Amino acid sequence: MVEAHFGVPLAAGVLNALNTRLEPSAIAYMLDHGEARAVIVDPEFSALLAQALALRSRTQPLLVIQTQDASFGAPTAALEAIDYEDLLARGDPQHPWQGPQDEWDAIALNYTSGTTGAPKGVVYHHRGAALNALSNILEWDMPQHPVYLWTLPMFHCNGWCFPWTVAARAGLNVCLRKVDAAAVLHAMRRWKVTHYCGAPIVHAMLADAPAELRQGLPPGIRGMVAASAPPAALLEAMDRLGIELTHVYGLTEVYGPATVCAAQPDWNQRPLDERARLHARQGVRYHLQRDACVLDPQTLQPVPWDGRTIGEVMFRGNIVMKGYLKNPEATAAAFAGGWFHTGDLAVQHPDGYIKIKDRSKDIIISGGENISSLEIEDVLYRHPAVQAAAVVAKPHPRWGETPCAFVELKPGAQVQPEELIAHCRQHLAGFKVPRAVVLGELPKTSTGKIQKFELRQRVGSVQAIDV
Amino acid sequence: MVEAHFGVPLAAGVLNALNTRLEPSAIAYMLDHGEARAVIVDPEFSALLAQALALRSRTQPLLVIQTQDASFGAPTAALEAIDYEDLLARGDPQHPWQGPQDEWDAIALNYTSGTTGAPKGVVYHHRGAALNALSNILEWDMPQHPVYLWTLPMFHCNGWCFPWTVAARAGLNVCLRKVDAAAVLHAMRRWKVTHYCGAPIVHAMLADAPAELRQGLPPGIRGMVAASAPPAALLEAMDRLGIELTHVYGLTEVYGPATVCAAQPDWNQRPLDERARLHARQGVRYHLQRDACVLDPQTLQPVPWDGRTIGEVMFRGNIVMKGYLKNPEATAAAFAGGWFHTGDLAVQHPDGYIKIKDRSKDIIISGGENISSLEIEDVLYRHPAVQAAAVVAKPHPRWGETPCAFVELKPGAQVQPEELIAHCRQHLAGFKVPRAVVLGELPKTSTGKIQKFELRQRVGSVQAIDV
Repeated sequence: MVEAHFGVPLAAGVLNALNTRLEPSAIAYMLDHGEARAVIVDPEFSALLAQALALRSRTQPLLVIQTQDASFGAPTAALEAIDYEDLLARGDPQHPWQGPQDEWDAIALNYTSGTTGAPKGVVYHHRGAALNALSNILEWDMPQHPVYLWTLPMFHCNGWCFPWTVAARAGLNVCLRKVDAAAVLHAMRRWKVTHYCGAPIVHAMLADAPAELRQGLPPGIRGMVAASAPPAALLEAMDRLGIELTHVYGLTEVYGPATVCAAQPDWNQRPLDERARLHARQGVRYHLQRDACVLDPQTLQPVPWDGRTIGEVMFRGNIVMKGYLKNPEATAAAFAGGWFHTGDLAVQHPDGYIKIKDRSKDIIISGGENISSLEIEDVLYRHPAVQAAAVVAKPHPRWGETPCAFVELKPGAQVQPEELIAHCRQHLAGFKVPRAVVLGELPKTSTGKIQKFELRQRVGSVQAIDV
Repeated sequence: MVEAHFGVPLAAGVLNALNTRLEPSAIAYMLDHGEARAVIVDPEFSALLAQALALRSRTQPLLVIQTQDASFGAPTAALEAIDYEDLLARGDPQHPWQGPQDEWDAIALNYTSGTTGAPKGVVYHHRGAALNALSNILEWDMPQHPVYLWTLPMFHCNGWCFPWTVAARAGLNVCLRKVDAAAVLHAMRRWKVTHYCGAPIVHAMLADAPAELRQGLPPGIRGMVAASAPPAALLEAMDRLGIELTHVYGLTEVYGPATVCAAQPDWNQRPLDERARLHARQGVRYHLQRDACVLDPQTLQPVPWDGRTIGEVMFRGNIVMKGYLKNPEATAAAFAGGWFHTGDLAVQHPDGYIKIKDRSKDIIISGGENISSLEIEDVLYRHPAVQAAAVVAKPHPRWGETPCAFVELKPGAQVQPEELIAHCRQHLAGFKVPRAVVLGELPKTSTGKIQKFELRQRVGSVQAIDV
């Protein structure tokens, strides 16, 4: 995957890193919608790819290229594929590298779960990728020759642009087949890791690891955390590990990190709960991002920096996607008024730091993965007993959030929550399946619209928490 | 001057930092040629500006703005000027900052001595300035909040773009009215300086300072050196001072540093003379510069990396000037074939490092200042006794190079070298005056062209030194 971040663009291709956690139908959709010409697959995922290929609706030929990995062994399924190393060996080492004709040309395509079931294809340009790769260096004061450990999947915003960051610093990429505490901590010691990124759950996993695994880490490791704010207990545990956490916030549409909760020198002297409150904020614009603001969605004027007035987080500048692939309506809506609208509702504190209060889009972020609540609702509606369904995020100490479904049954229908969960499991990737299904009448407006606000309050979601 | 690097562009102006060492006629030329609308002057240089204003040929009004500095005192001449602080006080703090309409728009104008007597106005665009400011950070792994000491004048390539670098790192600018060893070393201690730049003479001055002045420097200071290679003795002396030198090479047309002699980890273990030889090379492309190559000037193809084949150093990319102001011929010549031609002749070593062997342009670099040999020759030709004159660079242990004039007198004319030197002093800024005048017949080709090559060999200039 690291090599593909260079080989594909330099072969004038656009890289679409596929989320290996997705269900085969979603992979098939992306191969079709993105009009993939070739797909590179690791032996661990050949079965997943084989299922996805069987579900494609396009009939255009697709070149399948399979890598080898002695540490994994044989592919999980037989695929009609050419061998990756063979392909490279047939290449011409004298072929001159060709940069893009135009820096605004596409370098990557990243599908993201939006408010509708169908994933949207976010198109990155070279310019944005280069500038966010540099921003990562600037944020971390990252010196030349870092040792970067991959715990963050490269299918999330191209690993927050870090494949290019590490190359720009002439660094070392340390890759893991599986992210577990023993493997991560071993790699940190073995390679003297200096930097890594991940969702809170990755960092928590290290903090919770048995003491003997945590010993002997190289000093001064820096971790970057996004997707949800690091809780106080995690900050404290990371202190003990000697790992300094940087809290960033972003979305696929803005290449990963787009704001940073830049720590001020005096924060470490504050009581832990205050420190956690300060660190929980989304912060200020990332280095080479031009504008990161909380604006009134009607007037597009900045809200007062009073920590109380709610607006919408919006971005503008060089590090914003080209648009959604083959989706001009969604692109136009996302860029209404010349700003990229995140859908995240926030306040701006007197020190300029942004703090998210709610997400206006129906997105649940679980273990760093975006889940569309509408996608789950669509699946629930397909069950014959379901009259109405609404899925909201439920706060979870380990995953950040998990999907919680509220379901109203058809008159006379009889079904247990377990059956609805099993139904979801048939049609959805594991991480998208609701952890809880609550049966009962749904709260609705006078016009019959389901009041998700009310449901979020019931499960104590982020909206109800005033930080 | 630091403020002007932000205030002028944000007021939609173009900043032309004037070299205060120049003669009044040169300043007048720049004000005229650049069509200056306003000039900001420090009290120390009001006499110089008054003389320059008297020599202007344009009659358009020019707003003169004078700063105050209690540490200097009263202006050196009475000028009809408004006060800088008064001007700022009348400003509207709510005025919205306005970036450039287009990133390729001009941000700065920097006059440079070329091969002809009239200085050429090098126009910088915002894009190049921003990218070289970032390159400076990347080269030095410069962390946030550096303490930067100004020994390099900001009128040289906008201080190699460091005013913007320091701002991008939220650093501290330490400014000196006068660069002498005591003041520099005191400032380093007083402000815990982390970084500074300068010509070799600046670093040598610190190395040669009395021992008591050199004590107690903060550890880990990084210095950047350009204009000529740091000699072995200087490297050794800087080691003793605990200052790490980075050797860069560039020209006004490429925003200052454009290549860097990136030190390899094993160089420090080599014998001193070999270390000096390695460090004396101009090196590899600067971080965000796209291409820095030694090309055959005829074919524009790269020379073999054999350390022997001579070609011309050329640059291409984002960090190259827009062009020479109001000089399309010179601009077209400089960019022939799509590359910026430096005029510096060099080889490329097997490790890719560039080493300059000669300058094809008639430029002498003395104490970091460019001097046009043709400009001096023009002045010499104005003396009634002079038949022919040729000025070449003479290696100098302190200044790097100094101008050395060879003069052939008219038949029967009688004049001493001292008189010719005095004549030059009348018409040229002090640093341009030849240190030596050698009388005698000049070597010429069969067509009567003076053979400067021959003269350079006589004075043992860089061309004759094989490193």
